[in-house]
Amino acid sequence: MSTFGTLFRVTTFGESHCASVGAIIDGCPPGMPLSDEDIQPQMTRRRPGQSVLTTPVSLAPASNEARILTRKWLLVQRNEQDAVQIQSGVEAGYTLGTPIGLMVKNKDHRPHDYTETDDYPRPSHADWTYLLKYGIKASSGGGRSSARETIGRVAAGTIAERYLKMAYGVEIVAFVSSVGKIHIPDSNGDDDLLSEDYLKLLHGLTREKVDENTVRCPHQETAELMEERIHEAKANNDSIGGTVTCVIRQSPVGLGEPVFDKLEAKLAHAMLSIPATKAFEIGSGFKGCEMPGSLHNDAFVQKPDGRLGTKTNRSGGIQGGITNGEDIYFKIAFKSPATISQEQSTATYAGKSGVLATRGRHDPCVVPRAVPIVEAMAALVIMDAVLIQNSRKMAASLLPELNLPPSMALPPKKVQDEMVKKIVDQQKQ
Amino acid sequence: MSTFGTLFRVTTFGESHCASVGAIIDGCPPGMPLSDEDIQPQMTRRRPGQSVLTTPVSLAPASNEARILTRKWLLVQRNEQDAVQIQSGVEAGYTLGTPIGLMVKNKDHRPHDYTETDDYPRPSHADWTYLLKYGIKASSGGGRSSARETIGRVAAGTIAERYLKMAYGVEIVAFVSSVGKIHIPDSNGDDDLLSEDYLKLLHGLTREKVDENTVRCPHQETAELMEERIHEAKANNDSIGGTVTCVIRQSPVGLGEPVFDKLEAKLAHAMLSIPATKAFEIGSGFKGCEMPGSLHNDAFVQKPDGRLGTKTNRSGGIQGGITNGEDIYFKIAFKSPATISQEQSTATYAGKSGVLATRGRHDPCVVPRAVPIVEAMAALVIMDAVLIQNSRKMAASLLPELNLPPSMALPPKKVQDEMVKKIVDQQKQ
Amino acid sequence: MSTFGTLFRVTTFGESHCASVGAIIDGCPPGMPLSDEDIQPQMTRRRPGQSVLTTPVSLAPASNEARILTRKWLLVQRNEQDAVQIQSGVEAGYTLGTPIGLMVKNKDHRPHDYTETDDYPRPSHADWTYLLKYGIKASSGGGRSSARETIGRVAAGTIAERYLKMAYGVEIVAFVSSVGKIHIPDSNGDDDLLSEDYLKLLHGLTREKVDENTVRCPHQETAELMEERIHEAKANNDSIGGTVTCVIRQSPVGLGEPVFDKLEAKLAHAMLSIPATKAFEIGSGFKGCEMPGSLHNDAFVQKPDGRLGTKTNRSGGIQGGITNGEDIYFKIAFKSPATISQEQSTATYAGKSGVLATRGRHDPCVVPRAVPIVEAMAALVIMDAVLIQNSRKMAASLLPELNLPPSMALPPKKVQDEMVKKIVDQQKQ
Amino acid sequence: MSTFGTLFRVTTFGESHCASVGAIIDGCPPGMPLSDEDIQPQMTRRRPGQSVLTTPVSLAPASNEARILTRKWLLVQRNEQDAVQIQSGVEAGYTLGTPIGLMVKNKDHRPHDYTETDDYPRPSHADWTYLLKYGIKASSGGGRSSARETIGRVAAGTIAERYLKMAYGVEIVAFVSSVGKIHIPDSNGDDDLLSEDYLKLLHGLTREKVDENTVRCPHQETAELMEERIHEAKANNDSIGGTVTCVIRQSPVGLGEPVFDKLEAKLAHAMLSIPATKAFEIGSGFKGCEMPGSLHNDAFVQKPDGRLGTKTNRSGGIQGGITNGEDIYFKIAFKSPATISQEQSTATYAGKSGVLATRGRHDPCVVPRAVPIVEAMAALVIMDAVLIQNSRKMAASLLPELNLPPSMALPPKKVQDEMVKKIVDQQKQ
Repeated sequence: MSTFGTLFRVTTFGESHCASVGAIIDGCPPGMPLSDEDIQPQMTRRRPGQSVLTTPVSLAPASNEARILTRKWLLVQRNEQDAVQIQSGVEAGYTLGTPIGLMVKNKDHRPHDYTETDDYPRPSHADWTYLLKYGIKASSGGGRSSARETIGRVAAGTIAERYLKMAYGVEIVAFVSSVGKIHIPDSNGDDDLLSEDYLKLLHGLTREKVDENTVRCPHQETAELMEERIHEAKANNDSIGGTVTCVIRQSPVGLGEPVFDKLEAKLAHAMLSIPATKAFEIGSGFKGCEMPGSLHNDAFVQKPDGRLGTKTNRSGGIQGGITNGEDIYFKIAFKSPATISQEQSTATYAGKSGVLATRGRHDPCVVPRAVPIVEAMAALVIMDAVLIQNSRKMAASLLPELNLPPSMALPPKKVQDEMVKKIVDQQKQ
Repeated sequence: MSTFGTLFRVTTFGESHCASVGAIIDGCPPGMPLSDEDIQPQMTRRRPGQSVLTTPVSLAPASNEARILTRKWLLVQRNEQDAVQIQSGVEAGYTLGTPIGLMVKNKDHRPHDYTETDDYPRPSHADWTYLLKYGIKASSGGGRSSARETIGRVAAGTIAERYLKMAYGVEIVAFVSSVGKIHIPDSNGDDDLLSEDYLKLLHGLTREKVDENTVRCPHQETAELMEERIHEAKANNDSIGGTVTCVIRQSPVGLGEPVFDKLEAKLAHAMLSIPATKAFEIGSGFKGCEMPGSLHNDAFVQKPDGRLGTKTNRSGGIQGGITNGEDIYFKIAFKSPATISQEQSTATYAGKSGVLATRGRHDPCVVPRAVPIVEAMAALVIMDAVLIQNSRKMAASLLPELNLPPSMALPPKKVQDEMVKKIVDQQKQ
Repeated sequence: MSTFGTLFRVTTFGESHCASVGAIIDGCPPGMPLSDEDIQPQMTRRRPGQSVLTTPVSLAPASNEARILTRKWLLVQRNEQDAVQIQSGVEAGYTLGTPIGLMVKNKDHRPHDYTETDDYPRPSHADWTYLLKYGIKASSGGGRSSARETIGRVAAGTIAERYLKMAYGVEIVAFVSSVGKIHIPDSNGDDDLLSEDYLKLLHGLTREKVDENTVRCPHQETAELMEERIHEAKANNDSIGGTVTCVIRQSPVGLGEPVFDKLEAKLAHAMLSIPATKAFEIGSGFKGCEMPGSLHNDAFVQKPDGRLGTKTNRSGGIQGGITNGEDIYFKIAFKSPATISQEQSTATYAGKSGVLATRGRHDPCVVPRAVPIVEAMAALVIMDAVLIQNSRKMAASLLPELNLPPSMALPPKKVQDEMVKKIVDQQKQ
Repeated sequence: MSTFGTLFRVTTFGESHCASVGAIIDGCPPGMPLSDEDIQPQMTRRRPGQSVLTTPVSLAPASNEARILTRKWLLVQRNEQDAVQIQSGVEAGYTLGTPIGLMVKNKDHRPHDYTETDDYPRPSHADWTYLLKYGIKASSGGGRSSARETIGRVAAGTIAERYLKMAYGVEIVAFVSSVGKIHIPDSNGDDDLLSEDYLKLLHGLTREKVDENTVRCPHQETAELMEERIHEAKANNDSIGGTVTCVIRQSPVGLGEPVFDKLEAKLAHAMLSIPATKAFEIGSGFKGCEMPGSLHNDAFVQKPDGRLGTKTNRSGGIQGGITNGEDIYFKIAFKSPATISQEQSTATYAGKSGVLATRGRHDPCVVPRAVPIVEAMAALVIMDAVLIQNSRKMAASLLPELNLPPSMALPPKKVQDEMVKKIVDQQKQ
């Protein structure tokens, strides 16, 4: 349904052409500084109209000049479009711990008039399955299946991320890792392992770096090829898919709730709930599964700060469904947008063969805009897991010391008070 | 946590060395014929000790003769091992609609004595993260992170599957699609699409066919290479990963709950909650995202039986998070088992460098045994989605007819009673 | 938290002095006619300012004339106050099955300036406990604990009720059964049973009848005494509590989910979540528990329409946590409002003794306004239970016939199709 | 359904005549000492066969001698009956934080043979409604609606209570406050307030005191009258109802999750889910609602230990749905058992009039045995609320200090570390 999370819980509403879209965030920690302005930047990164790449601003041929221009964000009207308005849950600049209502007005909230193309469900779109499911659907645009639905997620995720940053210094950065067949070089040759260089890139990457080009690919040479690929798709009235990779750094340890709510299971759930996604892999992913255990295992090593870590990080920061403090990284596949201006041989709702030619201009590639959505969903998963694990650590800290061998228990706590004081540090491990 | 599902809900308990493992299934439809014997076959397919491939029965070299032998299931003691016992919820051979308690006794429920290897958390195992999370963990084997935990899932999934089969004719078949770098040939050449032959294989595959060899790979030539690869791993005291592919046929349409509980999101969640999984892809997956929309879109076509279907099925039976009646297929990656007998340079719980040599014999490859687990989790997802969608269809059928254009509503219902009678047929579409 | 329900799920937001209050309703059956106007009447019944009884419009002595006047609703400005606006989930006058966003703007959304009374937590109010819980709270009015929070519930409940009415003819009517020590005469003399007259009143009561006087008590003589009691409280700058009784008629049978979600348990949960409630009783309630089983048991009898019913209805329409088709009735206690204008000896937040004199005019009695809130919560409980039970009946109807003795099973279904067609009728039983 | 709780979650299974009954407790804090012996005492208090009062051990007339005898628990065979067996989640005497499986074998797990009385649904029992709901039901005894189902709750509640006691010193004591029309004197004369003496009784009551007589009523004179009343019912082949009152002392402050999961709402839900319950009231309850606010409000006062408390406690320890640290007390009504040996004029499943004479001996009064069940459900509610509130306090403690007026925020934290250290103390407030 339209609610996600257990203790930090977001519920969204809204179709592409209704009065407004938005969300209620329930369970936000009280006393956190928050205003509309804290949420807006990710909303702006998410919205269409940012560049010729992601929006149909221009059909001009992909000249060198045009490409240079498109590298600058087209932020005209930013202040007016997709402006988020906090309705509740915040006073005097602080969260109250009560539900935060969020709303973004829809500019275009009038359903369109009937056109001939309304006879056709769009191939690989949700038109037909929404009818199968509900018996009725919105008449215009994507309705509830529109990417506009993700506005509520991004707003909620931004609030989660803000808390995680303030409390634990968590950093979440996503970027475009491929467009069509063009990938950032990431492997180590024959063994198909992610290279050390690639993992270093993940470890140091910032959103500023990601936003240096319009495709949001931090490998500049690859970014230029990606832009060309998107321009090619647009020129062909076609579309193209790609992948987004995301890294979460400084995650608290111990997150994830076996057996069904392992952290990677929740991340996969969250990511595959984003429109147009087809695949998810964490750590070494599909390729890592081709390797023998002797090469794939992440051996333990004592880190300079004294805590136990791993030499390599093929696990992607999660082992047994639980975070171990290493970088969490994963990749999500987004298919090419279903709505294209090319003629398509297909059938009407009534089953009659025909040719559908969708008028108008459509987004040839969604992955650059998907970047903040992936970051938001990642934040929602981590935030909820933090609150649940906080509860357990707090509860356990009030019990007597354990005196068991190291294969059964962490070393005994010195003194009760000391242990409670350290909860925070442990969470930051 | 250890509960999965909304209306069809399974809760599991048990570690590798406690008194018993099991599950409670809540929400099973009442009046379904059910006995221990209906559950046992998948339990038996899941348990270790089935072949030299999946268990350390023999260290003999992989002679031709040995391989032939291993193709026969080693079912000795089947009746005694992992025998499921229904505790409640069934009387006179029928489900009562009340919770079904299920229990399987653990043969080995005494924690082992301390050994030197207890000083080391096993690399890429859950030993260390369980300690980080809980501060305490079971002393022996995998504890709660052991594959033994999956017994409850398989039992529950088998009950779900039984209902789906009886009510809708749903068929769920999983198989091993790769071991290490050895894959069933599945692509169409340069464009990397799944080939028509491969999709036909999925469409006609049976469990009997899958079980014809011990690796549970229905492509015999590939199966033999896979066996060799597993024997090689075993000979090296090493392990190897692989992938399992699963197809769901005859699924009712309209399943999946946008926006957060899209069917692929629930499937991904379910699959990534299985121990040792690293990746999930549905339909055309990662490769499909490299293709332009014009090639990737699944055009509509009227099927011989009159209903609307798609010419191709790159979507994998799900569009907009909702099933469309085509085959649902997806692939899951399982990493190589973490526990190997090779010496590994690593560190102790205390952070001291050293060499860990795990004694005993360990499963070199889990994918053949993972097959029924994947089938079970698939059944749990579909079952829960069916119950939720049933509720909606039933509720909507009691409302007056809609008279809206085809882009907004399915054709008006003839008569109210007729519509209700047709709910079943619609569910089967 | 701020979400209620499993399949029909309402999530609310809003404090007394924020920008707006509202709700998201998720899981509404698709294809139901719905507009703002369908929701507004209950919103209007709920809001303050309806009469001198429930609002501080006048401090005039309770003359006969005044009382007559107050029997007419003061509906001035109705169109402007608490006007609900549907944001999403509805198009062309029909629900889409997607989340329905609802919003009501707050007229007074500016926190007040500091006053001396801010030093005091109001006795028996939520001021102090909100601070204990969240460490922070809204500065003005009741914040999240304000009755204004119930706007979202009433809107959601009205939608649920609309469906129940359309699909099953369910009727939900609540009324004021006592104010202070003034009760509608309901018992049968010594044995304290509810009288036949009283149960007949419940069976035939309409909202129109309830709204004939301003206290919403359908027993006119009692109503007049209640009005006097409320005027007395107001004249004393005091407040007074009371009870609301609610009847649900034409409920489908089989509702309620043992063992933890028995229907009376859900009703009790729902009712005790309304601000200022202290008690709940269903059917014969506290008094019924004083009777021997031989007198209290509801004997079975065949009803004129052929189905099995009960001669008496001490169970209140629910047995074993499940509805049996008889009238469901229950009573809820509301304490006297905590905020009064009288001086109160109490202590400041800092623990210093002092006298609090709350300025302004306050609602001396909330029970008349609580009537639509009780109706709304009742509708939410029934609606969710209907959707869950629908799912089960639908699922069970697809299984083969049972042939078991009557103590184990309902009579065998004649033919499968027939059974499915009858689901509706059974639901209406 | 059969799961209760969010973070501390119990799921139960079992009917009266199946192989076993039991529960899975998920979310228990790790590292708590626990063994079968810690759970058994409450199991034993719950089970039938404890006295001639609650079980049909003897039909001897209620002589003085007999009554004296019955005041001693009849604990013969205690070790064999209802012996709980922990299956999982505990090792080396400590909880692992993983699900705790619990099982109690049913002695009598063979359905009975058909008898004539099987043609009749028992009046006011769940026989008929289970059929309406599920279409099928267990053939013998109460099936899932049997009090035997509460075994899982009591076991789970005992574990919750153990944690609450160890971590916070929480004390939960329930007792029988009335049988039939015989009540412990509790009111203050005309104003119907609970007397100071009664509240003092609640404040000091122990389980040992409660168990001094077989009816579990701590007011000895009343207890003797109650015993007579029960003997009278038994002599008449009849049954009688009553009330159980429960007090929770030393509860942490800040528990309860507005707006839908207010603590009293969760308590009401929990209590009304116990078989045979009809009503719930908290604090001053129904009677308190007859009083004006000026008398009913609980004024604030600084307690000797410096913290803010209330002079009176009509709120019953909960204001605005949140605990304030005062004693929590509430009362639950249990109807007279439906199964009696008297002849009853009723109708068969088929609707034919007739006389039902249930053979065998039946429990004439359940309230003494209900005492540990009420305690268990109370513990489950408090435990879950503690874990959720723990999470919030922990999360908020990591945010910067607030500097707001006392009507908006608790006094600023001195230093961050200090605040975290104090979380425990605050929880104990």
